[in-house]
Amino acid sequence: MNKTKGTQISELGEFGLIERLTRTLPKHNASSLTAAGDDAAVIDLGDEALLLTTDMLTEGIDFDLSYFPLKHLGYKAVVRGVNDILAMNGTPQQIVVALGISAKIMVEALDELYEGMRTACDELGVDIVGGDTTASLTGLTITITAIGRAKKEDIVYRTGAREHDLICITSNLGAAYMGLHLLEREKRVLKDVANPEPKFAGYEYLLERYLKPRARKGVLDALREEGIRPTSMIDLSDGLASDLRQICKSSQCGARIYLERIPIARQTSELAEEMHIDPVIAALNGGEDHELLFTVPLDKQEAVMRLGLVDVIGHITREEAGVILVTPDGEGIALKAQAFDR
Amino acid sequence: MNKTKGTQISELGEFGLIERLTRTLPKHNASSLTAAGDDAAVIDLGDEALLLTTDMLTEGIDFDLSYFPLKHLGYKAVVRGVNDILAMNGTPQQIVVALGISAKIMVEALDELYEGMRTACDELGVDIVGGDTTASLTGLTITITAIGRAKKEDIVYRTGAREHDLICITSNLGAAYMGLHLLEREKRVLKDVANPEPKFAGYEYLLERYLKPRARKGVLDALREEGIRPTSMIDLSDGLASDLRQICKSSQCGARIYLERIPIARQTSELAEEMHIDPVIAALNGGEDHELLFTVPLDKQEAVMRLGLVDVIGHITREEAGVILVTPDGEGIALKAQAFDR
Repeated sequence: MNKTKGTQISELGEFGLIERLTRTLPKHNASSLTAAGDDAAVIDLGDEALLLTTDMLTEGIDFDLSYFPLKHLGYKAVVRGVNDILAMNGTPQQIVVALGISAKIMVEALDELYEGMRTACDELGVDIVGGDTTASLTGLTITITAIGRAKKEDIVYRTGAREHDLICITSNLGAAYMGLHLLEREKRVLKDVANPEPKFAGYEYLLERYLKPRARKGVLDALREEGIRPTSMIDLSDGLASDLRQICKSSQCGARIYLERIPIARQTSELAEEMHIDPVIAALNGGEDHELLFTVPLDKQEAVMRLGLVDVIGHITREEAGVILVTPDGEGIALKAQAFDR
Repeated sequence: MNKTKGTQISELGEFGLIERLTRTLPKHNASSLTAAGDDAAVIDLGDEALLLTTDMLTEGIDFDLSYFPLKHLGYKAVVRGVNDILAMNGTPQQIVVALGISAKIMVEALDELYEGMRTACDELGVDIVGGDTTASLTGLTITITAIGRAKKEDIVYRTGAREHDLICITSNLGAAYMGLHLLEREKRVLKDVANPEPKFAGYEYLLERYLKPRARKGVLDALREEGIRPTSMIDLSDGLASDLRQICKSSQCGARIYLERIPIARQTSELAEEMHIDPVIAALNGGEDHELLFTVPLDKQEAVMRLGLVDVIGHITREEAGVILVTPDGEGIALKAQAFDR
């Protein structure tokens, strides 16, 4: 009885869809300080604010259980959830876990999933305080909802980037994307082999970056100790190009980033070459990096560099200048967001 | 590479599974006042507490899109999420919505889903403050995470029922269960009919109870105005038998409920008779009622009755006495939880 004709979601894209669904939502509570449009919602608690974010992972789209160990999946699910709190410069404290469980999933598999979630929670000082389980006719589905706290004046929004601010990232990019490609290739090659022995030698770093991304809480702690407050920040989940454009759109500014300053790991370049993929595409559009992208005022340049924890890849410009990638020979290319729209 | 042999989840049941997964979870934050085991988690905010709960609905298990209008589904998803906050005697304030969207779902369908969510939110004074969308290879999946606030001393846990307390419910039971059976019957009967005209005449109330359950915020407001604080409370989602046993287990008590006091709507009885289902089974084990089951001290009997909003169906006893259904001829039958374990 429901319509099956109409507008495909791919015509709007994920961002367009969210904008459409949330554009007319009313506000009943004064404590709802923000609506959709940042990594996490901000709820007023007086001097402090509560940060709230939810993240769903579905089997076959976000993970493939034929090669994704459940322990790592649990770990990654928590890191993804918690990262959205970190990207607001908040302290993650609690999560709740909703699971849709298909018949093929055994209790022991869920033990492993929970072991991974627990490891991540222990590392990040986060408590699992509740959850929900329901049956699923098909694949495993995991929704992690994370809450955290921050002093209101410490919260970093996507809207705060200003002209001349420096653009920083917390690690090299594209490694997770190449890790995923490696896993997919070995799965394809070994599809009909009785005792498959996938060839991962030399590329273990890429697998780890895809299967077990680390939350960069330590970088935020270090920035805080140095008295450096980012002016804007976002979790790098959709790829540098898309996420930088999000910052620029929210902050109504442009950006120039320099190709030779974008760190790409040796393993990333090597596998990309082997698989005839441009490593720059992996770094710009791969996604799933789960690093932090943030901006700091120009006068913090020395202090930020001294930390040795981040790379400065460019600076913020006026909106009219666009979002530009500068090649080594000085040419400027407008960055398109190729990410995630499916 | 993941195990497919092991313990089936049905061997443990939903409650057993959650107990197993959460039994050894550590606590890193003093603000995590409770772990799993109630309708919502309780987070310390000083004088007040934050209530946090998550609820996942999966297509084919929790709803069938061939007869479940998306507008109603959105409404029901919000009511289910918010009910867990109400069942702690809290005030729901914000929700975040995570959607897993299959390719057959069009943008217009999501508009309808959001329209229903928005209607429920407007009625309940709740804001949608964020969300996540991801693709889903198969069915639609909805996770609603709700937060609310309560003064600490107002929070009602499942653990507070005491001997002699009265057992109250906020409406008749079994109607949603029969509504579901009616929808399933008409779907079956009209499977191969070109222009199906399902026969719902006379049973509209049952459909409404299943498709569009109401949150009983008004009852809680009335209790508060009368100065009546429930001693224990739970959302009636798994059926009276199962949920009453949850209260008794958490409160380490027994219960006696009286069959002739359990309200069953006329339409429920009529359809049950037509379909050769025992209406008492529908009321005890049907589930999805989404009413509130709570206990109040014996001395509040008159005040509670005066409200005219609840039915008193029995009282709390000592643990040794068990959880007993008393038939009209005075016989006592031990209540088993048949609910929801799949």
